[in-house]
Amino acid sequence: MRVTVSRRAHFNAAHRLYRKDWSFEKNNEIFGKCNNPNYHGHNYELIASVTGSIDPETGYVIDVKILKDIIKMEVEDAFDHKNLNLDVPEFENLNPTAENIVVVIYNKIKAKLDKNLDLDVTLYETPRNFVRYSGN
Amino acid sequence: MRVTVSRRAHFNAAHRLYRKDWSFEKNNEIFGKCNNPNYHGHNYELIASVTGSIDPETGYVIDVKILKDIIKMEVEDAFDHKNLNLDVPEFENLNPTAENIVVVIYNKIKAKLDKNLDLDVTLYETPRNFVRYSGN
Amino acid sequence: MRVTVSRRAHFNAAHRLYRKDWSFEKNNEIFGKCNNPNYHGHNYELIASVTGSIDPETGYVIDVKILKDIIKMEVEDAFDHKNLNLDVPEFENLNPTAENIVVVIYNKIKAKLDKNLDLDVTLYETPRNFVRYSGN
Amino acid sequence: MRVTVSRRAHFNAAHRLYRKDWSFEKNNEIFGKCNNPNYHGHNYELIASVTGSIDPETGYVIDVKILKDIIKMEVEDAFDHKNLNLDVPEFENLNPTAENIVVVIYNKIKAKLDKNLDLDVTLYETPRNFVRYSGN
Amino acid sequence: MRVTVSRRAHFNAAHRLYRKDWSFEKNNEIFGKCNNPNYHGHNYELIASVTGSIDPETGYVIDVKILKDIIKMEVEDAFDHKNLNLDVPEFENLNPTAENIVVVIYNKIKAKLDKNLDLDVTLYETPRNFVRYSGN
Amino acid sequence: MRVTVSRRAHFNAAHRLYRKDWSFEKNNEIFGKCNNPNYHGHNYELIASVTGSIDPETGYVIDVKILKDIIKMEVEDAFDHKNLNLDVPEFENLNPTAENIVVVIYNKIKAKLDKNLDLDVTLYETPRNFVRYSGN
Repeated sequence: MRVTVSRRAHFNAAHRLYRKDWSFEKNNEIFGKCNNPNYHGHNYELIASVTGSIDPETGYVIDVKILKDIIKMEVEDAFDHKNLNLDVPEFENLNPTAENIVVVIYNKIKAKLDKNLDLDVTLYETPRNFVRYSGN
Repeated sequence: MRVTVSRRAHFNAAHRLYRKDWSFEKNNEIFGKCNNPNYHGHNYELIASVTGSIDPETGYVIDVKILKDIIKMEVEDAFDHKNLNLDVPEFENLNPTAENIVVVIYNKIKAKLDKNLDLDVTLYETPRNFVRYSGN
Repeated sequence: MRVTVSRRAHFNAAHRLYRKDWSFEKNNEIFGKCNNPNYHGHNYELIASVTGSIDPETGYVIDVKILKDIIKMEVEDAFDHKNLNLDVPEFENLNPTAENIVVVIYNKIKAKLDKNLDLDVTLYETPRNFVRYSGN
Repeated sequence: MRVTVSRRAHFNAAHRLYRKDWSFEKNNEIFGKCNNPNYHGHNYELIASVTGSIDPETGYVIDVKILKDIIKMEVEDAFDHKNLNLDVPEFENLNPTAENIVVVIYNKIKAKLDKNLDLDVTLYETPRNFVRYSGN
Repeated sequence: MRVTVSRRAHFNAAHRLYRKDWSFEKNNEIFGKCNNPNYHGHNYELIASVTGSIDPETGYVIDVKILKDIIKMEVEDAFDHKNLNLDVPEFENLNPTAENIVVVIYNKIKAKLDKNLDLDVTLYETPRNFVRYSGN
Repeated sequence: MRVTVSRRAHFNAAHRLYRKDWSFEKNNEIFGKCNNPNYHGHNYELIASVTGSIDPETGYVIDVKILKDIIKMEVEDAFDHKNLNLDVPEFENLNPTAENIVVVIYNKIKAKLDKNLDLDVTLYETPRNFVRYSGN
């Protein structure tokens, strides 16, 4: 009897989509206005979904306060009010597309969870554009 | 060609997270402010998702009015404006965590559906915390 | 140049609509299923809107962190995961209808604001029912 | 490492649920007020979700602008401000239930995607009723 | 001490924007794709907001069940799953723009309310376009 | 008979809250993490509300397409995917707090509207923080 427990969180950040090893023209061609050298930004909304068995003692798959704390430590404290390209080590050499960000977040949260819990992360870059990763 | 049909519903209820066989102190340690002996409450939002083949005659997997009526009878009439611990028999000896509630709801709706239809239930305890169960 | 700054917050609580000085039958007639003696509950969503002049030095009407802290102290810490009838002194002899709750919240927040700031409070009892009070 | 990229879109349309080969009475019995001969309508909200590997060069699974353009061409230009029964060839002999519409939309978008990309389409007929199809 | 009580409701309808006394070309020039002779449609979302004094006996400005019933009778039963141009007498000679619809709804609800209650109606034609009328 | 017509729009931007004429320490004390020298960002959501009389000929207060085009030209083209501090002339010497941004947007849209139309602008910096300005 496996149930999925989800927690919603959010952070605000600036970013720029580009590759240091490409010319400005090539970056513009591929990334368009997302390549603004002065950056733009988003309110990222995050849903972390943890799947596992219900503990018959507590009735919990995971205490949602624990999940909330992991998200705060691994995502909000690390990314909120930051420039992803300049302030977040994971993106020093990784283009901070929504796809790459969701994989980074997945890996950070997964490392803090019990091994028998599955994880799925949905990341909204805007209310209209979002991505999802579940580890494979 | 299997399509999923989802219907959203809602109910308001009071509850308290605790085990009768634990001391107040142990309940407090595990369930924190959710263990308030005077109860607290939520607007539960529910999505019941039914998967099956499209009936070529009607173009329906299930008439959404039938699904709406099942949810009304099995969930809204049974849980709305109730105290889950005191008024709902299923939780007399079962801690009404979101995980346990979603399994109870799944079982009640599943019993009313045709055997060839799959069910998946998502239950929002708050807009930030939600759970999902699909029967295995 | 007066601008309104709004902050959204939330709390979960149980309540029961009834008057101690009325019979159970009269309470049932007026308050229906909201009169469940075992209580029911809601996720209350709150918007506190503060109107004033923009401070030309900071560009703020009010630092939203200050508003957030006032709401936390006056509303969330006082009402969250509580039974409004039993745990909150303001409702010991006041029926906790949405109308009465929004006036209580308005008065608590207003008392902490600078005198030259206007306040308007919207309180969602459910996503479909909400109330608003601005002090007159 | 497969990631899902989702894009939200919308269109407004009129429709009527009925079969030309059934009597008005039989249509009424099965489709109720959805069988109004003068039509009714909806704001359809659409989520197209594309799953594939992240391109290590760009960090994209699919450039969301490409996905947005496919949805515009295949869905919005074809269905927006239309009468589905009278103006959209796919429904000339197909009852425009949400189930049938989501399959039609899936097939139109799928035909424009690279073969190695999976697709999943969710279609909201109202905020309370929605359907989902992923091609099998 | 005047408080505003709001109730959200919804109806689905088809409509066409045009004037019978204008040519098709003139209607097209002014109303564009909203002039589709086969109609298009919307999920209209409605907020009716009633302002008055709190009754010290009940703690209500208006019992929200009464407001819900007025909306059901005056708006939902009259407009839901209808073609506004063909099925609703008020629009026989009145172009069903959002502006005109909100005034018609205001007048229908206002006529059923106590004279000492003020009314304000917000009507969402889509989540992005909405109108509001408060009687003057 | 004055009706309000509202249109929702959005733009993504980076910004930093600080005053050039203050020390870094003073900016940090007042603006906290919003003073990150590398910027952070938001998905700004905007509602422009125009109030006027219904034109008896068309049934419109303002053709919402005209309002949409004004917002696109004055706000989206000017602010979207920009760094407000560096790329937008209005904020060269004006701290881009939500309060200051909403006044700038109000003034830009107001200048394009007929003189007999009133304007009210609501700007969401996040789903939890928003501001509103109506010109006085």
